[in-house]
Amino acid sequence: MGTVVQLKNQINDSYFQLKDSVEDKLILTEEKIKSKLASDVELVQKMSDYHIKTGGKRLRALLTLGSAKLCGYSKGSRDINLAACVELIHSATLMHDDVIDEGSVRRGKKTLNKVWNNQSSVLIGDYLLSRCFEMMVEDGNLEVLKLLSSTSSKIAQGEVLQLQHKNEVDMLEETYLKIISAKTAELFAAATKVGAILSDANNKEKDALEFYGRNLGLTFQIADDTLDYNSELKMFGKKIGQDFFEGKITLPIILLFQKLNLVEKKIIKETFNKELRTKDDFNKIISLIKKYKIIEDCYQKAQHYINLASNSLTILKESKEKEIFKNLTSFSLTRNF
Amino acid sequence: MGTVVQLKNQINDSYFQLKDSVEDKLILTEEKIKSKLASDVELVQKMSDYHIKTGGKRLRALLTLGSAKLCGYSKGSRDINLAACVELIHSATLMHDDVIDEGSVRRGKKTLNKVWNNQSSVLIGDYLLSRCFEMMVEDGNLEVLKLLSSTSSKIAQGEVLQLQHKNEVDMLEETYLKIISAKTAELFAAATKVGAILSDANNKEKDALEFYGRNLGLTFQIADDTLDYNSELKMFGKKIGQDFFEGKITLPIILLFQKLNLVEKKIIKETFNKELRTKDDFNKIISLIKKYKIIEDCYQKAQHYINLASNSLTILKESKEKEIFKNLTSFSLTRNF
Repeated sequence: MGTVVQLKNQINDSYFQLKDSVEDKLILTEEKIKSKLASDVELVQKMSDYHIKTGGKRLRALLTLGSAKLCGYSKGSRDINLAACVELIHSATLMHDDVIDEGSVRRGKKTLNKVWNNQSSVLIGDYLLSRCFEMMVEDGNLEVLKLLSSTSSKIAQGEVLQLQHKNEVDMLEETYLKIISAKTAELFAAATKVGAILSDANNKEKDALEFYGRNLGLTFQIADDTLDYNSELKMFGKKIGQDFFEGKITLPIILLFQKLNLVEKKIIKETFNKELRTKDDFNKIISLIKKYKIIEDCYQKAQHYINLASNSLTILKESKEKEIFKNLTSFSLTRNF
Repeated sequence: MGTVVQLKNQINDSYFQLKDSVEDKLILTEEKIKSKLASDVELVQKMSDYHIKTGGKRLRALLTLGSAKLCGYSKGSRDINLAACVELIHSATLMHDDVIDEGSVRRGKKTLNKVWNNQSSVLIGDYLLSRCFEMMVEDGNLEVLKLLSSTSSKIAQGEVLQLQHKNEVDMLEETYLKIISAKTAELFAAATKVGAILSDANNKEKDALEFYGRNLGLTFQIADDTLDYNSELKMFGKKIGQDFFEGKITLPIILLFQKLNLVEKKIIKETFNKELRTKDDFNKIISLIKKYKIIEDCYQKAQHYINLASNSLTILKESKEKEIFKNLTSFSLTRNF
């Protein structure tokens, strides 16, 4: 598993390349989000400020900005406005996620539901989503509106599906793929497709970028779920085991379960049925994951989607942005900051 | 206070008049909601079904249908689609409200968060809102999209404002009005205005119906908040005191607090600062409310908005629907089913 270390070195050459390439636009996107979330309700303003301050790496916004640039969009600020929309859909989802998972820390900062409370977080999530719809409507393009509103309802359905199958260790891989398609890949696909739509790209280009985004999203989520069980990452200071302690069933557990003998199956079932799981329980799972080489299996699955993402770019003409998008597929496998 | 009984007799002559007048359309609206909420995620489908089965009196949808009819809309089904949207915004809000207030019963039925759990209710609320945006986008009118998306973000802000001032017995009446404007009256205003927009009414008619809806909404909410402290209603089997036990500060408490002497002020402050309030606490409040004739004060305030609502209809030409809308202002004072 030296690959993790190898691939880590490529991070600067992909995520930061993309960031550098659209840096001015990203700053304007942040400003747009800030001004759109302004409210004369004190608590709304405070919570929005906190949210912006602790905002993540804005990968989805970068995908929209990068995709628009790749398609030759240069004049106007529709890319900024719609990148802000895409990012806000993601933020609203995260806020409700934190309420649902009773999360307390995200990106090294206390989550909103812990600084304030669950009630306010539910409402601020609603506020973000509504503001985002207002912004889309201001843009006024019905194709974009259709895409992003349908993405939003798919995300909600994906989240419910995930909840429905919580603690189900014998979850079908098919179900897992359905969940991550809806809750993650749809928004990645929308982010890149929106960039193409606002650039008046042709249908083939739109499809290519949508397909790229979707497969990048699948890779991204599989990598995320796998990293959570990758004990090698401890050396980089990354906290692992979060999904495990929450009782969330993800790809490593699904693939592991298929390979276990009956005695081991019983143990893992009992572990996930418990109210709380201990560090000891986690260490047991980690050794089973090592024993059956599950991390390798997961990376192989991810590789399948990386290839699809990469291949979907072939019809686009060569450019610096296309190269960056190609490199991003490696980033999505290793990101851990 | 014989007025409550008197006005109750008018219910059939207003709400049911409106319902009768657009009955076919209301049935189609229900069907539209049902088909739009269909999902292949089992839990989403189950929760949506339960929600539709326990759906309320659909007043907001009726307002859109009635307003469209009043403005002469007859061909097409845009009124049905947009009435469904307006109703779904309301439903999504209620679902998140029930999570926030930890409500357990609404309209005599267990709330979704009690039949399932808070987590699923948050997500199903998101789902309803997203589906509703999808439906608006299908309608494709940017004026409607702008209105309903901005309404949605105002509702969320109103809800946060309410949370921010929870348990604040010395809340300003101004703050109360700001809260109920945002969380209730905005959607009433949008419901009636949408009916005018889809009928291609002129600006003056649109404004008149928006203004009517807003003031009807304010009346409706003040009446709702007042009925909760109106002990006369016990004889109709209505449960009272819900806001009180939740520690929600509404108009009767605000007006009462202004009139109390220092000793009484101290008592009421302590009562609302308690974790839980008893039946005895409630009876004490009720006798203070009687002593200071607060119910009468509240009805006077409501009367102000009734008059505004009624007057805003004057510029519209006479019709059966206009008469029904006029009568509805009395209904909003007395509804208790």
